[in-house]
Amino acid sequence: MMTFMEYPQPIEHLIEQLRKLPSIGYKSAERLAFSLIDWEGKELNDLSEALNNIKRSLHFCEECGAMLHQENCRFCTESRDSSCLCVVAGAKDIYLFEQTGEFKGLYHVLGSLLSPLAQKTPPQERIDSLKERIEKREVKEVILAMDATLEGDATALYIKKELALIDLPISRLALGIPMGSSLDYIDGGTLARAFSGRRVLG
Amino acid sequence: MMTFMEYPQPIEHLIEQLRKLPSIGYKSAERLAFSLIDWEGKELNDLSEALNNIKRSLHFCEECGAMLHQENCRFCTESRDSSCLCVVAGAKDIYLFEQTGEFKGLYHVLGSLLSPLAQKTPPQERIDSLKERIEKREVKEVILAMDATLEGDATALYIKKELALIDLPISRLALGIPMGSSLDYIDGGTLARAFSGRRVLG
Repeated sequence: MMTFMEYPQPIEHLIEQLRKLPSIGYKSAERLAFSLIDWEGKELNDLSEALNNIKRSLHFCEECGAMLHQENCRFCTESRDSSCLCVVAGAKDIYLFEQTGEFKGLYHVLGSLLSPLAQKTPPQERIDSLKERIEKREVKEVILAMDATLEGDATALYIKKELALIDLPISRLALGIPMGSSLDYIDGGTLARAFSGRRVLG
Repeated sequence: MMTFMEYPQPIEHLIEQLRKLPSIGYKSAERLAFSLIDWEGKELNDLSEALNNIKRSLHFCEECGAMLHQENCRFCTESRDSSCLCVVAGAKDIYLFEQTGEFKGLYHVLGSLLSPLAQKTPPQERIDSLKERIEKREVKEVILAMDATLEGDATALYIKKELALIDLPISRLALGIPMGSSLDYIDGGTLARAFSGRRVLG
């Protein structure tokens, strides 16, 4: 006969909290909790402090929506090329593009993607401020840099419609074969887009 | 050109803390940290509180080594069968055996396994208290319930040697085919032990 036996309350409580994290189920949360029991008191304090700290000392740029600590926003400085504005879904995405070193323009964080299934749209105030910024900063091109997913496509269409009255080129990221990948592992949809988006050499 | 760009300091700090968890690398820690940013202030407080709480309100039974909250140890009560004592590596293992409902005896937590590679042995005070408890509680049988691994085997041999002067049957858990598994997936070592440990059908 299998009987279910609960761990002492502080452990069950910690497991319950850890389960809220993405892709952490009961077994993983259990594993994390038991490893945390073995941490030094100081280490646990540090982690707990870092958690508290994140809400207290992390802010978001009112202009572009990037994450800030204490400094001014480094993505809104005068040195950035304000003729090009890149719209991203989340504040984290900015770092992905910065790491490529390819883009020197402005960013605009939407906050969330449009999700037809969850009936969710990006916050209206972020769309309003996008329009304002395009006019104020004299932007010449808008790049919609969303995921190549259902939500990403829906969001791009939605933003394009919202910006319909503004006469500007609006582009999306190229679809194609990821660098270093073999054709064997590429799906038909991607291959078709890679074909239609082919570029003449030289 | 790829340029590495750090996240704001509170995020980098949190990622650094989360990376200390088992099987959490940089990418996973990053993912956890960014999901934590989206948590409500109250939820973050709860998690941080649960972490602090674990050292403060979790104790270990001085007798058997089980985890305790505020209550007395439920594995050391008079109702348990003190003729049989089960030696386990960690406090968590007790719950695995309790859930089977098969064992009603006493437990003894070693604290850690003997690791020949890491040159680590179980804490001497836990071995001393094991000997004391065997005499005091008039134990009739000792079960060594360790992992069926190199460390588990080494620990079992080590404990057997330590208890050499005590005249008692010392057993280990049966090795064999796990319930519900197909022979195709069982390694040769396990199959050999399942053969030698075969039982006549009743």
